[in-house]
Amino acid sequence: MTAERIYLDWNATAPLRAEARRATLDALDMQGNPSSVHREGRAARGVIDRARRQIAALVDADPAHVVFTSGASEAAAHVLTPDFRMGKSPLAVSHLYVSATEHPCVLAGGRFTPQAVTSVPVGADGILDLAALDRFLAHHDVSQGLPMIAVQLANNETGIVQPIAKIAEIVKKARGLLVVDAVQAAGRLPVSLHTLGADFLFLSSHKIGGPKGAGALVSAGEIMMPAPLVTGGGQEKGHRAGTENLPAIAGFGTAAEAALGEVEEYEATVGALRDVLEAGLRTMASDIAIVGGQGPRVANTTFFTLPGMKGETAQIAFDLDGVCLSSGSACSSGKVGPSHVLDAMGLDAETGGLRVSLGPTTTMADVERFLAVFSRFAERGGYAKRGEAAA
Amino acid sequence: MTAERIYLDWNATAPLRAEARRATLDALDMQGNPSSVHREGRAARGVIDRARRQIAALVDADPAHVVFTSGASEAAAHVLTPDFRMGKSPLAVSHLYVSATEHPCVLAGGRFTPQAVTSVPVGADGILDLAALDRFLAHHDVSQGLPMIAVQLANNETGIVQPIAKIAEIVKKARGLLVVDAVQAAGRLPVSLHTLGADFLFLSSHKIGGPKGAGALVSAGEIMMPAPLVTGGGQEKGHRAGTENLPAIAGFGTAAEAALGEVEEYEATVGALRDVLEAGLRTMASDIAIVGGQGPRVANTTFFTLPGMKGETAQIAFDLDGVCLSSGSACSSGKVGPSHVLDAMGLDAETGGLRVSLGPTTTMADVERFLAVFSRFAERGGYAKRGEAAA
Repeated sequence: MTAERIYLDWNATAPLRAEARRATLDALDMQGNPSSVHREGRAARGVIDRARRQIAALVDADPAHVVFTSGASEAAAHVLTPDFRMGKSPLAVSHLYVSATEHPCVLAGGRFTPQAVTSVPVGADGILDLAALDRFLAHHDVSQGLPMIAVQLANNETGIVQPIAKIAEIVKKARGLLVVDAVQAAGRLPVSLHTLGADFLFLSSHKIGGPKGAGALVSAGEIMMPAPLVTGGGQEKGHRAGTENLPAIAGFGTAAEAALGEVEEYEATVGALRDVLEAGLRTMASDIAIVGGQGPRVANTTFFTLPGMKGETAQIAFDLDGVCLSSGSACSSGKVGPSHVLDAMGLDAETGGLRVSLGPTTTMADVERFLAVFSRFAERGGYAKRGEAAA
Repeated sequence: MTAERIYLDWNATAPLRAEARRATLDALDMQGNPSSVHREGRAARGVIDRARRQIAALVDADPAHVVFTSGASEAAAHVLTPDFRMGKSPLAVSHLYVSATEHPCVLAGGRFTPQAVTSVPVGADGILDLAALDRFLAHHDVSQGLPMIAVQLANNETGIVQPIAKIAEIVKKARGLLVVDAVQAAGRLPVSLHTLGADFLFLSSHKIGGPKGAGALVSAGEIMMPAPLVTGGGQEKGHRAGTENLPAIAGFGTAAEAALGEVEEYEATVGALRDVLEAGLRTMASDIAIVGGQGPRVANTTFFTLPGMKGETAQIAFDLDGVCLSSGSACSSGKVGPSHVLDAMGLDAETGGLRVSLGPTTTMADVERFLAVFSRFAERGGYAKRGEAAA
C-alpha cells in the first residue's frame, strides 16, 4: 500500500489544527509556572486567561465559569459527585440519572456509588425517553438531596443529538442539576450553555482540534459547585489544583476559537460530505442501516450496521486498506467490546457496526476513497448481502 | 533592563529539555487516539509504552507499575484515599499521616476527610520527627483499617531530604502504606522505589524538564491499588480513564531518560554552583540563615532568610532586576501566603525567605549575576543588616 492513509476517526480524536499547534508550541516555549509571581509566571497566566475567554465564547458562557481540567473524563469525574457546595455550605446531591447511551466516563458515575446511579432508557431512535425521566424524577426524594441528570448533547458513537432544552425543563421542574456532555457537539453545533438550560457542561480539547491533555468544566454560575477532585494548590480558584497544562490549554483555547469560526458552515461543508458518503453506502448496500439516521445528528458522524458484518473485523479490514475508522468508541485501550449504545437502542451490540467520522479538513477525495474501499470490502464478501444473511 | 533574564526557579517549573521538546512535538504530530485499534492508534500506544519504560527506569520500578496521570497533584489525589483494593476485594485505609512540611497536594489529604488526616511534626532541621511518627502509629487501630503515611523525599521549598528508608521501617512495623512524593528528588538524587521501601511514589513531568500536563503514580506492586479517581474508559489498565496526554507523556518519558543520565553528576555540577552561590551569600550577608543548610538537601535548592527581609517584597525586587526566583512555592495562582514549611520548622513564616533553585543548564555566569543583583539589593537596604534589625 503506497496510497496515503485517510483519517475518518474524528470522534476518537481530531487532527490537531495548525493554529492550535502553533499556540501549543508557543506556550511550550514559555518558561514559567502560571502560579509564579515573576514576569515569566504572569505571562504564562495571561495565556491561560486568554484560553478561558476562548472556551467561554465557544459555549456562550462567562469566562469566570470555566475550570480547566486534564480532559473530559476528569471533568465528568469532577462534576458527577454527591458532594456539592452552595457557596461555603455543603449541598447534598443524592442520586445521578444518566441516559443509557452516555460515554463511559459518565456511565461510571464519577464519585457517586453505583447504587446512587440510575440509567434512564433511550428509545429505538436513541433519544432519551422523556416520560421515563419524568417518572424517575417524580419518585426522587428531594429531602435526601437534589437529583443530578447527565445527558450528552451528541453521542460519540452515533452522533445522535438529544433534545437538551426539553430535558432541562423536566430537570428544572424536579429541582435537579443538569450536566451536559458537550464533547462531541462543540464546534459541530452552535452550543449555548444558557439556551440549553444546563447547569454544567464539559468539553475536550482534542475532539475539537486542540491537543490532548486539556478539557473544561463550564458552569452556569459559581455559587453551586462540586467539591474539587484534584486538591492542593489554589489554582482555578480552588476548583482544580495542580500546575496548569499551559501548552495544552493554549492550544485548546485556539482550537475553540477556530471551531467557533467554523460552526455555522459545519452542516453545509462537513454535512454535505457525510451525505455523499451515506448516499454512496446506500447505493452499494441497500440493506445498510444507518443508526439514528432518521433523527437529528451532528453532521460528521455515520454509524452503520450491515447484516453479517462484524464491526471489529470490518474495522481491521479497512485499516489494512488505509482507512482509519472505528467500530465504536476509542476508550478502552484497544479493547473493543459490544457497543452499549447499540444495546440501549435495542440493536445487535455483539455484531456491532462501523463509525465513520469526518471533520473540516475531510475532502471529497477522502469520501470517494472510502467508498472505493467499501466497494472492494463488499465484493470480497465483507458482509452478507441481502438474502445471504440467513444462509 | 536589556540584560538577559536568568531563571533560578527550577523548583516551580524546570525549563523544557531540548530532547523532551522534540519528543513532545513528534507526538503532537501523530494522529490517532492511543486506544484506537487502527495503525495510528497503535503507533500512539507505542509512544506511551516507551515512556512507561523510561519513567520506570528513573525510579527503579517495573514499567507495568506506572500509571500516568495529568500531574503530581492528580497522582496525590489518586493515591491518598481510604478506598483501596486488594486485587478485587476492598481494602480499608483508615487514616493518613503526613509530615507537616508536605506539598499542599498532600496536605489536602486527597480523598480522606479532614478528620482522618494527622500532621506529624518535623524538627527544627525540617526532618520528620520519627519518634512522633512511631507514637502516632502505635496508637493507630489497624482493626479500623491500615494507616497510610505520606512523606516527601525532598521538600519543594527547602530541598531538605527525608530519611525515607528509616521512615519505611517504622511504617512497615505498623503495617502501613508508605507514599513518597518524589517530585523534587527525581533526577537530583538516585531514586529507587524498592530501596526506599515505599509502596507508592509520584512524579511530575515539568519538574524534571518535561512538559507540563503529565505525572505518574508508581507502585511497588499491582495487587494493592487505590480506587481510580478519574473513571470511565479502560485506559491505564483501568486505573486512570481518559484519553492519554500523548505529547506530554512522550516528553515526560524522554525527560526522565535524560534526567537519569545526569543524576550521578548532579551533585558535582549543580551542587558546585549552589555552593558558590551560598558562599557568596554568606560573604555578603553574614547574618543569612540557609534553611536546612546543616542537613541533607538536594543539590539545587537554597532557601534563605535574612533579618528584616520580607520574602514577597524581595522576590519582586529581584524580578525587576531580571532574576526569576521564588519566595516559596508556586501553587496558589500568584497568591503568596506564609510558608507552612518555615512555620513547621519553627521559623518566621510571615516574613518568609527567598528560594533560589538551579538546574543542569544553570551556569556560573547566572550565579555571578544573581550575586551581583543580591549585592545591589543589600546595598539598597533590601534587608536590615546586623544591628539594624532591632533599630
